[in-house]
Amino acid sequence: MSDEKAKRTDIGTLGEFGLIDHLAKNNVQYNASTLKSIGDDAAVIDNNGLLTVVTTDAMVEGIHFDLIYTPLKHLGYKAVVSNLSDIYAMNAIPKHITVSLAISNRFSVEALEEFYSGIYAACKAYGVDLIGGDTCSSNKGMFISITAIGQGEKEKLCYRNTAKVGDLICVTGNLGASFVGLQLLERERQIYLSNPGVQPDLEEQKYVIGRQLKPEARRDMIEAFAKNNLVPTSMIDISDGLASELFHICKQSNVGAIVEESGVPIHPETELLAIKFKLDPITCALSGGEDYELLFTIDPKDLDKVKYLPDIYIMGEIVERKEGVKLHTKGGNIHDIKAQGWLHF
Amino acid sequence: MSDEKAKRTDIGTLGEFGLIDHLAKNNVQYNASTLKSIGDDAAVIDNNGLLTVVTTDAMVEGIHFDLIYTPLKHLGYKAVVSNLSDIYAMNAIPKHITVSLAISNRFSVEALEEFYSGIYAACKAYGVDLIGGDTCSSNKGMFISITAIGQGEKEKLCYRNTAKVGDLICVTGNLGASFVGLQLLERERQIYLSNPGVQPDLEEQKYVIGRQLKPEARRDMIEAFAKNNLVPTSMIDISDGLASELFHICKQSNVGAIVEESGVPIHPETELLAIKFKLDPITCALSGGEDYELLFTIDPKDLDKVKYLPDIYIMGEIVERKEGVKLHTKGGNIHDIKAQGWLHF
Repeated sequence: MSDEKAKRTDIGTLGEFGLIDHLAKNNVQYNASTLKSIGDDAAVIDNNGLLTVVTTDAMVEGIHFDLIYTPLKHLGYKAVVSNLSDIYAMNAIPKHITVSLAISNRFSVEALEEFYSGIYAACKAYGVDLIGGDTCSSNKGMFISITAIGQGEKEKLCYRNTAKVGDLICVTGNLGASFVGLQLLERERQIYLSNPGVQPDLEEQKYVIGRQLKPEARRDMIEAFAKNNLVPTSMIDISDGLASELFHICKQSNVGAIVEESGVPIHPETELLAIKFKLDPITCALSGGEDYELLFTIDPKDLDKVKYLPDIYIMGEIVERKEGVKLHTKGGNIHDIKAQGWLHF
Repeated sequence: MSDEKAKRTDIGTLGEFGLIDHLAKNNVQYNASTLKSIGDDAAVIDNNGLLTVVTTDAMVEGIHFDLIYTPLKHLGYKAVVSNLSDIYAMNAIPKHITVSLAISNRFSVEALEEFYSGIYAACKAYGVDLIGGDTCSSNKGMFISITAIGQGEKEKLCYRNTAKVGDLICVTGNLGASFVGLQLLERERQIYLSNPGVQPDLEEQKYVIGRQLKPEARRDMIEAFAKNNLVPTSMIDISDGLASELFHICKQSNVGAIVEESGVPIHPETELLAIKFKLDPITCALSGGEDYELLFTIDPKDLDKVKYLPDIYIMGEIVERKEGVKLHTKGGNIHDIKAQGWLHF
């Protein structure tokens, strides 16, 4: 109690990534089997040549999800998928998960079953085994932490720090839809709270709602890479938004990037709704997050392998670090891209 | 919203282990590499012969710990140790951990550093690498989930379901101290809350307080087993109390057990304080929990290997299932031992 006047720094001042860097600076490594520690989509452990890839992600009620508009089954599914996405982003195959859960006793057994039915549905869809976990009570709020464990091959794993000048920047699927879906759900929530009689009509926006509530991980892409003997030079999954992920690759690889606005894939429904919400569609794509698409770079000599794969878009090029991280707009201007993690604190 | 009147079962009605069984009943296995799933101290994954052992444990503020009397450094240390204990209980060696953390913004960066200094201290003490995790905010309360990953050999791993009739029941260290330490801290907390001017005097009870706030995992025992070529026939760590763990072994091995009260090791300070609190010392040892000692069974032919190892106590024998799980008291009576997990809900 004598330390009341000791130094006090607000967590918010460091930001999410600053905080991780700050806490990790005292991290010491004792095992030679630790090939990759904090700082990528997942850690890598060497088991006599066969690699084990491990990632952990937490979700907190009121911060990452709102149970007013999130069905518990979807929540369970999404909690698993967001972790599997990190394993795929290493170009590895997820095989096992553990689920740690704290819930208040206002939850019924049936509600918990709903949540687990989503967990099991994701396990089935991705061929992953639930092998352990912990379920305990909280005084308030729901907390989910999932650890996913996968297998990979040394020559095929993809990291964030291995992009090279001249590499092409590629992205799968389309971006910003999940963020726009969230805006829509938030709006409906406000309407519902101020007038509980009004039922939401979300039928016409099924696509963006689905991207927010039931995202999928790009297992298909990792399988397509393997089939076409393509190993990206770097890779990351898009959970915090394209801009933030691109900054991770550029910072860790010590390079810059130039992205063509015209090359950033945005779904027509995302575009329409963004405009309706008076949001810039490209901003939604750059900073929206929760897309769970893959951002990766390839050596230009692999262009032919990528060109004929569906759902992959080439949207820029890796350049020298001193050139920065820039967006070449459709109007012909060059803008700095700003990194932005989720600002939770 | 139309399901308001659907069936609603209180989580509390199932109990901790009932809930786990209930939720695990739909669990399907897709990977041949899953050698052991839910139901032991840890899960076991086969990596071409080398085994990966994985466990996850969660701790919730207000349920598992109280920040009024738990220093953050100790909390970080204990959170790691309780997970390592599960890996050792498989007769495996922990190598890696991931830490998932949710905290409210009332925490300062310095408070978080304190917590992580405990994490790192445990990593150093046990030669374990922190390889990943997630730190995010909560609206209220602190939530910690740690996953520990270890390595083991196929012929040496110890499970809960392999005890045989005639095996001797052994335990390391002593039991009940952590529980009695908790009672003491809770009492001081009440005194502090009703009269904040009174400073607690815990000097004389250092041992039980230490057992509660800064427990250790029995790495030394696992190393002693290896050195003496001893492979227990079954093993479990004591986190929920001796009775509960003994029931796990008996249920999963389809056997019964008889325990000699005189064989249950209790520290003199535990005994004295228990009596002061009007608690039965043997009840504290049987149901207290958080001892992080090892409960294991050995083939009688291995008796000589155990007899000369320090800090191991032989306290009973595995019998036929139909004989139940019994305590032979110092007074010569036979009592049923009742299982009791933590009743959190």
